[in-house]
Amino acid sequence: MLIVQKFGGSSVADKERIMNVAEIIAKTHNEGKKVVVILSAQGDTTDELLQKAAEISENPSEREVDMLLATGEQQSVALMAIALNSMGLPAVSLNAQQIGISTSSTHGNARVLNICGERIPAELEEGKIVLVTGFQGINEYGDITTLGRGGSDASAVAMAAALGAELCEIYTDVDGVYTADPRIVKNAGKLDQISYDEMLEMATLGAKVLHNRSVEMAKTHNVNMCVRSSITKAEGTRVVNSGDIERHAVVGVAGDLDVCLVAVREAKNETGSLYKLFSVLAGHGINVDIITQFKGDSFSEITFTVSKKDAEKTLKALNENKNHLAIETIKTDGSMAKVSAVGVGMASNPGVAAKMFEAIYECDSEIFLITTTEIKISVLVNAGDYVKVMNAVHEKFELGRTNQITK
Amino acid sequence: MLIVQKFGGSSVADKERIMNVAEIIAKTHNEGKKVVVILSAQGDTTDELLQKAAEISENPSEREVDMLLATGEQQSVALMAIALNSMGLPAVSLNAQQIGISTSSTHGNARVLNICGERIPAELEEGKIVLVTGFQGINEYGDITTLGRGGSDASAVAMAAALGAELCEIYTDVDGVYTADPRIVKNAGKLDQISYDEMLEMATLGAKVLHNRSVEMAKTHNVNMCVRSSITKAEGTRVVNSGDIERHAVVGVAGDLDVCLVAVREAKNETGSLYKLFSVLAGHGINVDIITQFKGDSFSEITFTVSKKDAEKTLKALNENKNHLAIETIKTDGSMAKVSAVGVGMASNPGVAAKMFEAIYECDSEIFLITTTEIKISVLVNAGDYVKVMNAVHEKFELGRTNQITK
Repeated sequence: MLIVQKFGGSSVADKERIMNVAEIIAKTHNEGKKVVVILSAQGDTTDELLQKAAEISENPSEREVDMLLATGEQQSVALMAIALNSMGLPAVSLNAQQIGISTSSTHGNARVLNICGERIPAELEEGKIVLVTGFQGINEYGDITTLGRGGSDASAVAMAAALGAELCEIYTDVDGVYTADPRIVKNAGKLDQISYDEMLEMATLGAKVLHNRSVEMAKTHNVNMCVRSSITKAEGTRVVNSGDIERHAVVGVAGDLDVCLVAVREAKNETGSLYKLFSVLAGHGINVDIITQFKGDSFSEITFTVSKKDAEKTLKALNENKNHLAIETIKTDGSMAKVSAVGVGMASNPGVAAKMFEAIYECDSEIFLITTTEIKISVLVNAGDYVKVMNAVHEKFELGRTNQITK
Repeated sequence: MLIVQKFGGSSVADKERIMNVAEIIAKTHNEGKKVVVILSAQGDTTDELLQKAAEISENPSEREVDMLLATGEQQSVALMAIALNSMGLPAVSLNAQQIGISTSSTHGNARVLNICGERIPAELEEGKIVLVTGFQGINEYGDITTLGRGGSDASAVAMAAALGAELCEIYTDVDGVYTADPRIVKNAGKLDQISYDEMLEMATLGAKVLHNRSVEMAKTHNVNMCVRSSITKAEGTRVVNSGDIERHAVVGVAGDLDVCLVAVREAKNETGSLYKLFSVLAGHGINVDIITQFKGDSFSEITFTVSKKDAEKTLKALNENKNHLAIETIKTDGSMAKVSAVGVGMASNPGVAAKMFEAIYECDSEIFLITTTEIKISVLVNAGDYVKVMNAVHEKFELGRTNQITK
């Protein structure tokens, strides 16, 4: 049985944390499993290296930044090999060049294309624990690339897919995926299982335990993932195919306070106005989240949300194109919060939306915008009602620790 | 014209030093020369990484230590590329895997075998300054090796030889090779030129500006080297073929205080006793420097010198084998100093030895041991006479700043 284990930077930040992780790896190895370990750079190493580059140049070449940053993971894998060796275990560290991870050529945000090397299977065959640098690859020119945020998770999933691993364990400093953020909803419970699609929605909506790219990749290659804590070592949350888990209407409630509502009223109901409006926003690099449209007889109103940091830029872009877009009025409101219920079973469970609206009505909060997908219902409420609404919805779907759905 | 420039760790220790080195490189590039730069790890980086490994294990795997240490040079080359880019110059950093430096497989002390990559010529052809990680290579298994002490100098010379460079400049924090250590001999002068062989002897004898391996390699491949300061930027000392420089009897005086004299008296004049004695020492990893032998009618005495740190180990090894080696008495004396005069012209200049002995006699010092090669005369004197003898010999051969031989 082959397991891929990934440990983040805080898990290998110092000697004590390294030895702690070495024990987790050793335990897995001693159970007779083949183990491939993906490591991130130690603690703040990546930030320190970026700082060094920034001191020299405000705008350093991305190729050279990747060359610089890649050293962080290489240090981690070498130190971990030394730690495992000191426990009498056979281990070998390998960097991206040695294992042959090929990626696209975009420095700083490359995508894994292929893992073609023979080295890992050969080392595993010899009984060795293989330690691999996360976050990095090699492009077609032989240059080192890095995979961007969440890159080590992506390395781990790509590795698990390429090697046909039975399980890809992502160790982090939380002990799994929760039904809601425990800082907001005190009664939030840890999920034993969650589907890829639910995880994708939860991640997007603020439960940032896993980065979406790794979940998408796991879904595509059908890799069984597990999120667990390197500190408590408790059983974590398995992220699996939705076909493999019991269907529940709602698995979790996610929230987001980084929301600015924009309402644009157009003078006339012109064909192609939606296209023109969002082309302008895209041209300014503004990401839009929820979009709704109301069409009246004499005017139409388009309402959408953007990240708060983009609010000013959005206003400016729209004002500059007011005539071109035939805009009558623009209103923005940054005092909003998004609350979403997520669950693959939602589509086959009628009444989920009604139940959610009921919860919000009962706690005396107003809904400003609604958007739904097959596995998610999101509403915009006043930011001041955020905690109240999160808890009310969480309770309405009986997601609390005492009612945990996947038990 | 192609120039290889090598900068040590102290030359790239911080942002200011990096920018200083970048200016030296830029100047060479702007003169229309092709430049390949070899860099060491920044300042104390290598020691800090070794310390991290030592915290985890007293006896870390040499393969993993090499994997760990190699990151230091990679950081240097990336940062230097960023610095040169910020000055508007085209530069690219490459590590050992990318340039294809193949080495022997001995981790921590590998030898360069070959540089086979096409990458450097291709980048030079595009007009780029090429920055290469020193001190490291790749062995037949694809593992990273390091070249041991002086390894970056060796990288630079190997690179200059492989690329057919016109000159290999070794930048350091002294401004060249001196006729003697200026801390001991106040009147010591900088040499404009020195031959490989003289440099080898000077290095061995304590003028440790260049490591012998790089000088040997330069001699073998006939690479023109130049030692100069990255701080003063003054013309340094060129290390060239002895055929290319005017012959002088003596170019410099070198000294060494790390000398312990060992005198072994054997009971009988047995055949093979020398072999047996030095086999025992070699078996204990003890390096022997000067060896002389006196053969009398009833006994023979072998006198040799070892490094002070090996004195105790030498005594122990000899005492344990006293019977086997037929030893009567063992005497050691750690209060000795070695003074040597070096020069390729010595062999064709009769009277060099006489002149040296005269200088020592005139300053009232006693000679305990003499050894000569074609280009060197070494004597052992009392450590207390060291400074006096160094200066006397230096003056006798008229090596002072006012009499500089190669001017």
